[in-house]
Amino acid sequence: MRLMRFGAPGAETPAALTEDGTVWDLRGLTPDIDGAFLAGGGPDRARAALAAGSLPRLETDGLRVAPPVARPGKVVCVGLNYRDHAAETGAAVPERPVVFMKDPGTVVGPYDDVLIPRGSVKTDWEVELAVVIGARARYLETPAEATAVVAGYAVSHDVSEREFQLELSPQWDLGKSCETFNPLGPQLVTPDEVGDPGALGLRLSVNGTERQHGSTKDMIFDVPYLVRYLSRYMVLEPGDVINTGTPAGVALGLPGQPYLRAGDTVELGIDGLGTQRQTFTPA
Amino acid sequence: MRLMRFGAPGAETPAALTEDGTVWDLRGLTPDIDGAFLAGGGPDRARAALAAGSLPRLETDGLRVAPPVARPGKVVCVGLNYRDHAAETGAAVPERPVVFMKDPGTVVGPYDDVLIPRGSVKTDWEVELAVVIGARARYLETPAEATAVVAGYAVSHDVSEREFQLELSPQWDLGKSCETFNPLGPQLVTPDEVGDPGALGLRLSVNGTERQHGSTKDMIFDVPYLVRYLSRYMVLEPGDVINTGTPAGVALGLPGQPYLRAGDTVELGIDGLGTQRQTFTPA
Repeated sequence: MRLMRFGAPGAETPAALTEDGTVWDLRGLTPDIDGAFLAGGGPDRARAALAAGSLPRLETDGLRVAPPVARPGKVVCVGLNYRDHAAETGAAVPERPVVFMKDPGTVVGPYDDVLIPRGSVKTDWEVELAVVIGARARYLETPAEATAVVAGYAVSHDVSEREFQLELSPQWDLGKSCETFNPLGPQLVTPDEVGDPGALGLRLSVNGTERQHGSTKDMIFDVPYLVRYLSRYMVLEPGDVINTGTPAGVALGLPGQPYLRAGDTVELGIDGLGTQRQTFTPA
Repeated sequence: MRLMRFGAPGAETPAALTEDGTVWDLRGLTPDIDGAFLAGGGPDRARAALAAGSLPRLETDGLRVAPPVARPGKVVCVGLNYRDHAAETGAAVPERPVVFMKDPGTVVGPYDDVLIPRGSVKTDWEVELAVVIGARARYLETPAEATAVVAGYAVSHDVSEREFQLELSPQWDLGKSCETFNPLGPQLVTPDEVGDPGALGLRLSVNGTERQHGSTKDMIFDVPYLVRYLSRYMVLEPGDVINTGTPAGVALGLPGQPYLRAGDTVELGIDGLGTQRQTFTPA
């Protein structure tokens, strides 16, 4: 199933998208797509309601596409998780996942404008596979247990300011947490529709020029490994988001470091999860 | 004013504490002490209701003391912000604030048990002054603007696992985000009652032995500086918490590194903000 949210920030309507492009209104089932919905069997109820034909259509013309899950409790990020990206940034291939966090308030819709922070000259892109958690998880022991707590997957744009991240503090969070720095969506796709999360193509282009084109098969630590690993150090809660790292091709690693400027447009997508498009504007 | 919350997790009662030790029930004014209450003039309404004598008493016998603000949207931490602590950890005095984050789900009550993570041998203590934000803040320009968005102050225990923080990942968040790792409270004290946040004594003892005894006057970057600085890189929202760093005396910096073990009891406090007490138990 494909879950979506439509409408202005703070007033989103929960919805499901079917293969024919029809959007169905889930307000009769839940006030929102959030941790409580995901943990409380919401996706199964939505699936049953779709099968029963009991949902009204939702007219989405003119509505903003919102992030597909209401504000997460946390956004955990894994750095340097693709061999080619570790190499382009000059970092060694890590022996363990490199874990940091973004302010969860950075999550915005997949077509919302992204703000270039005041004073920024090194705003960079990163297409990533996001894992959305569907059940409370601590000290998971097996990959199967890890897979069982995944509610679904989404496209995530882990926008990064490299001067803030790498030059102003030895800790990266400062350059990862700027306003609007985490477009998410358009869809939260349940695992049954995604298939193998370790075999998805990812791509990103800037002003029409392709910059990233990778595959999740090149992850150093795959999704079950990451979920299990993180659950040993923190409690994963329903609605939490894990950004699983980006493949090669970010501005930091390209000749001339062509960082984003106001007016630039970034398009990104992942096989089966849909596409995003943002215009970058001054904060 | 001194704001508190009492009761089991998820079912807390908002309250105000007066000088004579009486606790007053704020449920007639607000469902909770959270970002909406702090940003919407809640403290002023509570003050007026106290003055008018219109609040009922709250009987707190046997009730858990909860953290004084409902789950924050984020917990931002500043590392190495006291000269003596930077020295004891072998780090240089930083030229800019070192910024990282804790999972906001780590916030627990000031007397709740703290869990030593499975496999941990380096669980450490850190008494810190917490700043709680009361109004949305971005790109603040002056210290006065920074002071104006502070809702109040609280005691914070920034519990840290040093192996996870310093050895397992170049990024610290992994060792800062373990379950129950941020006891907060008992009180959220409004700035008018705190006076100068740059002249508060902090202390912490383990099993009755004093380990930390410092003053916020030894901060490298003071509260108005930190709030203004952070607002240039992220949006501060009502209810967000900033942990402003710890003075010398943590286990990492002591001879023999006497890390916490199951059964240990930690007591900590800050002038005018109250005291905490936790027993450490296995996760």
